[in-house]
Amino acid sequence: MKIAIDAMGGDNGSKPVIEAVKEFLNKYPGNELVVFGKEEELQELNGLCRIVNAPDVVPMEAGALEVLRMKNSSMCKAISTMKEEGFDAVISAGSTGGFLSAATLILKTIPGVKRSALVTAFPTKIKGKKVVVLDVGANNENNAEELLQFGYMGKAYDQALFSVKEPKVYLLSNGAEAHKGSPLVKEAHKMYLEDKFVGFQGNMEARDVLNGDCDVIVCDGFSGNVLLKGMEGIAKMMSGMIKANFKKNLWTKLGYLHVRKGFKDMSETMDYKSVGGAMLLGINGVVVKAHGNSDAYSFFSALKVAKQMVDFEVVKNLKESFKNE
Amino acid sequence: MKIAIDAMGGDNGSKPVIEAVKEFLNKYPGNELVVFGKEEELQELNGLCRIVNAPDVVPMEAGALEVLRMKNSSMCKAISTMKEEGFDAVISAGSTGGFLSAATLILKTIPGVKRSALVTAFPTKIKGKKVVVLDVGANNENNAEELLQFGYMGKAYDQALFSVKEPKVYLLSNGAEAHKGSPLVKEAHKMYLEDKFVGFQGNMEARDVLNGDCDVIVCDGFSGNVLLKGMEGIAKMMSGMIKANFKKNLWTKLGYLHVRKGFKDMSETMDYKSVGGAMLLGINGVVVKAHGNSDAYSFFSALKVAKQMVDFEVVKNLKESFKNE
Repeated sequence: MKIAIDAMGGDNGSKPVIEAVKEFLNKYPGNELVVFGKEEELQELNGLCRIVNAPDVVPMEAGALEVLRMKNSSMCKAISTMKEEGFDAVISAGSTGGFLSAATLILKTIPGVKRSALVTAFPTKIKGKKVVVLDVGANNENNAEELLQFGYMGKAYDQALFSVKEPKVYLLSNGAEAHKGSPLVKEAHKMYLEDKFVGFQGNMEARDVLNGDCDVIVCDGFSGNVLLKGMEGIAKMMSGMIKANFKKNLWTKLGYLHVRKGFKDMSETMDYKSVGGAMLLGINGVVVKAHGNSDAYSFFSALKVAKQMVDFEVVKNLKESFKNE
Repeated sequence: MKIAIDAMGGDNGSKPVIEAVKEFLNKYPGNELVVFGKEEELQELNGLCRIVNAPDVVPMEAGALEVLRMKNSSMCKAISTMKEEGFDAVISAGSTGGFLSAATLILKTIPGVKRSALVTAFPTKIKGKKVVVLDVGANNENNAEELLQFGYMGKAYDQALFSVKEPKVYLLSNGAEAHKGSPLVKEAHKMYLEDKFVGFQGNMEARDVLNGDCDVIVCDGFSGNVLLKGMEGIAKMMSGMIKANFKKNLWTKLGYLHVRKGFKDMSETMDYKSVGGAMLLGINGVVVKAHGNSDAYSFFSALKVAKQMVDFEVVKNLKESFKNE
């Protein structure tokens, strides 16, 4: 397995990437990681893996064209080298828009796939169980046919990453009943039925997404983005309130000692870092976007996501699924 | 002020409504409440306010046509009597879909208003400060012109309910930058600028909605529903985790004693019941939908919302705003 790694784009620079790479090589020997970035910053990896000097750093707000113009950027070199040398995967913690669109332009979508989708996983009420959500923002709008394809893509991802044999797939809607939803959802619902999509369970309201019943929730990129970021926003607000409650005074700090374990478990459950970022599905190759503020643990999780996608041949399987489209 | 009250539709029957009515008459004497429902259940209100016998109860899942057909239902009678006798407001805790569409059909939208919108308020990071969100689900889809009108409606609501003089209005989008968003948001953004909408601040991502900077967030009914219910879902999940953490054993219960105050404040802040449900804006008359599972406090809050909307002549002001449309 060969993975191209952009070591520079994240908020925290190359340090967490170096840590994650070392950890990964240690845990999964026999895989080849190729790291792109400022050579002098990557000395620690000398002898452990191939280092490609690509000193320019793509700014956080960069778009695809800017990435493509920056030929010596770690991001652009990582993607284009992946393409030229036939690597299996590419990872970056840099500009989401820039990375995803540049990867799409360089690597191209799988034949038959109308649109790629950004997929990630949320924690649920059921310990250890995740729900797969797509598209969370690769697209500004989608049509019904694309929503049907997202169902197949999400299913393949869920099977590979969480070993769910027969994922239950729902459409995100404003009511659970089959006749409810936006015109787009209504049309997509009909297409799922006509397609006899195995595992399709109907519509689901946003409030039930985390109840543990749903394996894959399909939505257009705009709604998915609202869902993801809305949940992120309120979770952050509540976590802040919890911390403030415990930090108020000596007495409350004492209280924390009594419940420390439970709240640590809770913050681990809610921790998006364990999910390892998001993957762009539907592309010729595994494209993983690590969180912009990744620490070593988070970047390592992203590497693991890439590995599992390659191990389970998700790209090959999707090519198979969509070859007759 | 005359308010029509459907006493029957909620999950908890007429009991919390009776409590809320008594409390309201006590706190705000001189207002006339007319209560619709099973006469024998409402005896406690005899002498306090007018009671109209309307024994049929609209089922939770009823649509507008079902409501209109059930002439002797408390919901249908409350709305039609409001219209016939010229009341100021109507309130129900019954079927959302049925109530909102029946109210729209009977009372009609304000001339010039393209679509009514369901509006509610969320808590924010800043203590006591609420953010107004609309549409949270009256519509399955909206066009840009409707989103512009929602801005005016939300502004009027914010000014009346929270006394914000010059509300900051944002469009919900998948990026804060002006050029980001669905085609709908992009078009609406342009219309806000062309309209020189006073207080328009641009786009806002879902994750920032609760940061306290935004007074009114405008979205189409589908996205708004996803935002509202997604946040509700994760807030409920986290609250459940918090409670479970404290209830584990004697030791954790002891811990709770140390931080009780902070967590009570927190659950009050997050408590949707204090917001008093949602209002349907853009209708000829004040139409308030109390929470289906309202207790007396929650229904009382809904009555207060209705009172403030009438006091501040929101309907009259909106009529003024839209008369040249």
